[in-house]
Amino acid sequence: MSSRKIGIVVYPDSEELDWAGPYEVFTMAAQVGGDLEVVTISQHEGPVRCAKGLRILPDHSFETAPQLDVVLVPGGEGSRVEMDNPVMLDWLVKAAESCTWVTSVCTGSILLAKSGLATGCEITTHWAYITTLRELAPHVTVRENIRYVRDGRIVTAAGVSAGIDMSLWLVGELFDADHSRKTRRFMEYDPEPPY
Amino acid sequence: MSSRKIGIVVYPDSEELDWAGPYEVFTMAAQVGGDLEVVTISQHEGPVRCAKGLRILPDHSFETAPQLDVVLVPGGEGSRVEMDNPVMLDWLVKAAESCTWVTSVCTGSILLAKSGLATGCEITTHWAYITTLRELAPHVTVRENIRYVRDGRIVTAAGVSAGIDMSLWLVGELFDADHSRKTRRFMEYDPEPPY
Repeated sequence: MSSRKIGIVVYPDSEELDWAGPYEVFTMAAQVGGDLEVVTISQHEGPVRCAKGLRILPDHSFETAPQLDVVLVPGGEGSRVEMDNPVMLDWLVKAAESCTWVTSVCTGSILLAKSGLATGCEITTHWAYITTLRELAPHVTVRENIRYVRDGRIVTAAGVSAGIDMSLWLVGELFDADHSRKTRRFMEYDPEPPY
Repeated sequence: MSSRKIGIVVYPDSEELDWAGPYEVFTMAAQVGGDLEVVTISQHEGPVRCAKGLRILPDHSFETAPQLDVVLVPGGEGSRVEMDNPVMLDWLVKAAESCTWVTSVCTGSILLAKSGLATGCEITTHWAYITTLRELAPHVTVRENIRYVRDGRIVTAAGVSAGIDMSLWLVGELFDADHSRKTRRFMEYDPEPPY
């Protein structure tokens, strides 16, 4: 039997922790045990320069990406460009066909809104983007002051680090609460912000 | 005046969030305002494949790396290889000469111990590595059940996600508490682990 697949979409100027947090959670959940594979996917082959300058080499282009069970769209400055990129939006709609969960972090939710995938849904985003998202996407309901929102198969996280919490919740759905607890334990995720 | 520079060392099988968490914190601290540049550094040029399969393109090799004010060593399975790599250990000692802070995340602390940089210091590591670190490095004191430890200019974090908390503490030292709070706010780092 082939593994369940999680595809993390990366694009120019996507925010590093938006995708790196969920990447760590899901790959750690796979290491803890169980049937799960995590791949990074971008429109084109070759390096992608992220929002703060980190360059990564994605595993797949849109053309070579496998069929997915979960798709995750990060946010970042580049989301303002990608929300008007029909190749990105069309690919998301097509990739979502096989997905049990369609998810985003931070301003990535604008891509779920613009693609039509989140039409009629409650979603969230980075606190500084709430008003803009409401203006740009009147066909969705934007919730604020919430860590992540689940509406059917659409799950959207608040800003940047909120993707870690959302992903741990998804691990609970994909496996069970105990699997998520073990994943958290191996990430030693017992946060203590100093300020 | 040239910027203060933070160098994040990456090596084969370094754990993704160990370096990506601090990378996000420090680059966000720079965006919030202030004199700070963050670069990734590896022994060789070209792509580095990390512990869970992510491939990144570091900014510098050991040869081209700029003079640093802060050096950060992540952990991961590859630390078991790098702790016996004299090129890595020699480079760390040399890079540390100009550094105000010499730091590690997770099992990265074994490299600070093996290089001699942490000799006589209190350090910490991932909970699952405490006993091994004590055996491998009898010339350091290994503390457990603590998020991060500061001993002089040596600052070491516990496992994986603890690097985020340590880095926010360092932002408080490099700037001030308010700068760290702003950085945290833009990362929306108000963790709510679901399980």
